Amino acid sequence: MIIVLKPEASKADADAILDRIEATGCKPLYMPGSERVVLGALGDERVLTALQLESDPMVESVTPILSPYKMVSREFHPHDTVVHIGDVPFGSKGFAVIAGPCSIESREQLQQTAETVQAAGAHCLRGGAYKPRSSPYSFQGLGREGLEILGAVSASLGIPTVTEVVDVADLDAIAEHADAFQIGARNMQNYTLLNAVGRTQKPTLLKRGPAATLDELLLAAEYVVSSGNPHVILCERGIKTFERATRNTLDLNAVPYLKQRSHLPVIVDPSHGTGIRGLVAPMAKAAVACGADGVMVEVHVDPTRALSDGHQSLFPSQFDELMRSLLPFVEAAGRTL
Amino acid sequence: MIIVLKPEASKADADAILDRIEATGCKPLYMPGSERVVLGALGDERVLTALQLESDPMVESVTPILSPYKMVSREFHPHDTVVHIGDVPFGSKGFAVIAGPCSIESREQLQQTAETVQAAGAHCLRGGAYKPRSSPYSFQGLGREGLEILGAVSASLGIPTVTEVVDVADLDAIAEHADAFQIGARNMQNYTLLNAVGRTQKPTLLKRGPAATLDELLLAAEYVVSSGNPHVILCERGIKTFERATRNTLDLNAVPYLKQRSHLPVIVDPSHGTGIRGLVAPMAKAAVACGADGVMVEVHVDPTRALSDGHQSLFPSQFDELMRSLLPFVEAAGRTL
Amino acid sequence: MIIVLKPEASKADADAILDRIEATGCKPLYMPGSERVVLGALGDERVLTALQLESDPMVESVTPILSPYKMVSREFHPHDTVVHIGDVPFGSKGFAVIAGPCSIESREQLQQTAETVQAAGAHCLRGGAYKPRSSPYSFQGLGREGLEILGAVSASLGIPTVTEVVDVADLDAIAEHADAFQIGARNMQNYTLLNAVGRTQKPTLLKRGPAATLDELLLAAEYVVSSGNPHVILCERGIKTFERATRNTLDLNAVPYLKQRSHLPVIVDPSHGTGIRGLVAPMAKAAVACGADGVMVEVHVDPTRALSDGHQSLFPSQFDELMRSLLPFVEAAGRTL
Amino acid sequence: MIIVLKPEASKADADAILDRIEATGCKPLYMPGSERVVLGALGDERVLTALQLESDPMVESVTPILSPYKMVSREFHPHDTVVHIGDVPFGSKGFAVIAGPCSIESREQLQQTAETVQAAGAHCLRGGAYKPRSSPYSFQGLGREGLEILGAVSASLGIPTVTEVVDVADLDAIAEHADAFQIGARNMQNYTLLNAVGRTQKPTLLKRGPAATLDELLLAAEYVVSSGNPHVILCERGIKTFERATRNTLDLNAVPYLKQRSHLPVIVDPSHGTGIRGLVAPMAKAAVACGADGVMVEVHVDPTRALSDGHQSLFPSQFDELMRSLLPFVEAAGRTL
Repeated sequence: MIIVLKPEASKADADAILDRIEATGCKPLYMPGSERVVLGALGDERVLTALQLESDPMVESVTPILSPYKMVSREFHPHDTVVHIGDVPFGSKGFAVIAGPCSIESREQLQQTAETVQAAGAHCLRGGAYKPRSSPYSFQGLGREGLEILGAVSASLGIPTVTEVVDVADLDAIAEHADAFQIGARNMQNYTLLNAVGRTQKPTLLKRGPAATLDELLLAAEYVVSSGNPHVILCERGIKTFERATRNTLDLNAVPYLKQRSHLPVIVDPSHGTGIRGLVAPMAKAAVACGADGVMVEVHVDPTRALSDGHQSLFPSQFDELMRSLLPFVEAAGRTL
Repeated sequence: MIIVLKPEASKADADAILDRIEATGCKPLYMPGSERVVLGALGDERVLTALQLESDPMVESVTPILSPYKMVSREFHPHDTVVHIGDVPFGSKGFAVIAGPCSIESREQLQQTAETVQAAGAHCLRGGAYKPRSSPYSFQGLGREGLEILGAVSASLGIPTVTEVVDVADLDAIAEHADAFQIGARNMQNYTLLNAVGRTQKPTLLKRGPAATLDELLLAAEYVVSSGNPHVILCERGIKTFERATRNTLDLNAVPYLKQRSHLPVIVDPSHGTGIRGLVAPMAKAAVACGADGVMVEVHVDPTRALSDGHQSLFPSQFDELMRSLLPFVEAAGRTL
Repeated sequence: MIIVLKPEASKADADAILDRIEATGCKPLYMPGSERVVLGALGDERVLTALQLESDPMVESVTPILSPYKMVSREFHPHDTVVHIGDVPFGSKGFAVIAGPCSIESREQLQQTAETVQAAGAHCLRGGAYKPRSSPYSFQGLGREGLEILGAVSASLGIPTVTEVVDVADLDAIAEHADAFQIGARNMQNYTLLNAVGRTQKPTLLKRGPAATLDELLLAAEYVVSSGNPHVILCERGIKTFERATRNTLDLNAVPYLKQRSHLPVIVDPSHGTGIRGLVAPMAKAAVACGADGVMVEVHVDPTRALSDGHQSLFPSQFDELMRSLLPFVEAAGRTL
Repeated sequence: MIIVLKPEASKADADAILDRIEATGCKPLYMPGSERVVLGALGDERVLTALQLESDPMVESVTPILSPYKMVSREFHPHDTVVHIGDVPFGSKGFAVIAGPCSIESREQLQQTAETVQAAGAHCLRGGAYKPRSSPYSFQGLGREGLEILGAVSASLGIPTVTEVVDVADLDAIAEHADAFQIGARNMQNYTLLNAVGRTQKPTLLKRGPAATLDELLLAAEYVVSSGNPHVILCERGIKTFERATRNTLDLNAVPYLKQRSHLPVIVDPSHGTGIRGLVAPMAKAAVACGADGVMVEVHVDPTRALSDGHQSLFPSQFDELMRSLLPFVEAAGRTL
């Protein structure tokens, strides 16, 4: 940790801080410069962070040297982690495709959509029973009934499933009917939920919040992993920026950055990442090319009748076409679809 | 609602959509232009929203005419709502000041801080028992013990209190020991929590999420109010932008905008909104000047020893000075402190 | 154009606005709703924009129906435009690679870098003689001497060149020594420069500003094209967001969006778009996959000695590896390298 | 300067960098930690910056200790600089108000607007002759004719003037007819223009770019000052963020931050900073309260007929009311209006 003092800091101010550093068992360093005094502290940065040295009125800035996450970092665990949803591996040589509707609306709707995406080659089925919506007047999902539909469709087709959890109270029911939890973007920093999911062994798809930095995403994953659940898949789904032409700005820089920093699998959601049906396919291909381990795509048997996110959902024929056009890029990446 | 069709849309496409609009009981309008066909739909926009017309492949854009929130809007309720925390009114002629530490660390720390802020003129005491932190390795609050300290300090000084709720399971305990709930920025779109708080009658301070638009903040408030709890105070606390000199960008435009659109009280948190101790006082004054109903300020009896947010916490003498320097601006605004 | 009136607007207010619309020769429409009056105006939107109806105190909002650009739009010109830099086509079946150093530092540095990128398969050479730098104390480029070096290296190797123009006064000299102008991100809305470049017939690579929306980029291109120069190549190079892990957030959504809206070629600069050497190759592949017509990559014969942007410049061996690894993705996209 | 090496860096890698630091005459420091080696370099940071150490593949990060600007910093020049436009001081005890139309449209329009703002108490007149507009089809200003109108109106009323410069070729003409240059937000990093203005002694109002950090604004000012012109006034006018309710997000944090870091006067433009007529007055008051030295406000004799920015321009009566309501806040700030 590097501590820069304010110009007005005296030698006594510096000594007081050096004493606090030494008292933690870390090694203090004193570096007087021509315009500023700089202090160093070598040792366990989490111990040093607890000192809250930036609170000292004589401190101008504090710069950590190490990343704030540990168990999710590649330094801690150099090899790629493979997470399985059902029997589908994420983070291995295969490129995994999750597809399905935004919301589960009825048995018929989900069954038809699931059959169509499975036939086209999707590996997992998505579908929301509990829908966090910006407006209280929007469709909020079928809840428990939706979960049961999801379980039934999954059983009938043998396709593993992912569904969003928004409340700790629903964890057991979701665990019973689905193969993986999804923590949605709005709940990425809902630590109650992260800790609860971390106490299970269920695979967990963790979506980046729309204003979360990549380090904050990794710290959110660290909550889950450090609570005991190592089965975390990271998901880039777009961030909020000034650009209004698209619903979000899909930050594909995130993919190689996360893969370099962390051993966890990384997938991309081009549906939310663009918010425009016609941009989903090109961005899914870009996700493959920059190293993602999979994509999650919204597909609806009839998007024009969808109760949510229909504008960004693919028609079945479009998904079919996407899977076909994805294949050469998956092969170019040296992977299998 | 205004629906612009794509250039390739046929008359039959337009008719199909007009039929769907008419079927809802709304009034359809057909406006053929030279380069695009535009459709109108007059009536209840929430019914129209449910049609999800933007999902239609022949639709280029859908623009609502009315705001998506209702009960929190000034059109629905023209007069200012006054919310009381204990006996302190928010949204009336008085300018309300909430002060206290980021986290409750001990009985002594909270008691001393509370006494000092009360002596300087603060109306309410803040202090967190449950602390959502980006890192699982940071101090997470004293939990239940912290709540009991908060209740005891409040009782000893007769000062009303606000504390953050992060989990529905803690609601009753918090309701017992504190006078108001705070929904933190990270939980602004935790709808489970919003609905649960909405089923109480406890005043609720709702902080804007760091990536939430003002309309999303008003929709989050609509969750609480439409669930039955009208006692909501909105709080601007800074948003995430590219600017790195400050922790957040305090969006004071929000204050007059929210006051014009909504009848709810609006306060400002210049501590999180700047993240820099030396910017808190000028931004508190700016909050008064642009029409805020109050401020919430982090103060610690010794910020250099604070377990969280010490760098942005005022020293007691600085808070005292802030209260003195705030007074002329409060008077200039025609209010009382 | 759709005009929503404020709730307090009277019938007379609406009539006054309808009269102004009619006076322009456009067709006015009156749509009274239950809570708002909506007006329509059908006809040439640029005439309507000149009315500045949003200035009327009785107007709540004005929504245009058509895009504000015309000559650069695909509606106006459905077929892909191919722009040639030297004999290298952009926007055709070939995928074009521009490579070279950020700044021209010496004849030797540019010659060696050019030879190495040409040998690896780059089609065009980049190199800056006039460098806009955030700090007045940073290296500002060799100026005229740099241009002459660029011309000499280009002639010796027969490789076409692109170089940045920052001042109208330099246009002739640059036109003499280089094959294409680059308008840098900081100058994307320098309309003096756009108009001047628009009066030439030189191919112009127009980089998106770090805070420019895609529509603003297209309008900047419209300046050049409407001034008489149709040879414009658009370049996505990253935008400013809250994310600090990367220098910019590369907005690849821009590629399919721009290709769908405009007939102009679109390339990507993954060097500035990431600011991290190790992210350049994956993002170049992503650019191919989402439909870009080319990439521009910073390469330096010895990045550790570069006078600018060395941290994001590839070593020659890395560029060689990039070209090899790009090929399967280019083929997957049905293009040639 | 603090240099953190990558985990794989060897002692020889560190030594090579230490040698490069020593060769500059700066003092190198070697700090081996448990997980990373950290190097320090004490001395002139601009010399160190030229080393471009971040380009070294063994370097993980480089953190400067000192700010990159010098002449504009308060450390370099502790006392407030007062800049005069005509006889109006900026940065002294008086609070300065610049008012006038976005564009000069005619002698009559400017004369009437100028008379009305002067009568209400404005100190300076603004008005654009050269208008940078996003669209080539928007009104671009009257050019030279506009300048002459500005000069004539100024002479007739004895009110000093500010007008925007977009092209070095116009500098002399503008200098002849106006009292101060304005560098607009789109040109904040047009270094050709900054250097040209820096070679004059004319007061220069430098507006922050919509994506410029505060440090970038100070570096832009450093261009002007280091070129020889110390008469720079900084202007916060809003930045681009995800918030769509307002045209820009007015970043008032900038005011105290800039005043603490720099000795230059700082003013605020609430017209562009909000883009909404009804938000201008509250944000002007907030600007006073947080320490701004003045405001610049768009006023038009008839905003409904304005050729640009009418929606954010005040009616004369609104400006009159603003000046009256500003006074108590100016007095609360201990200043005069």
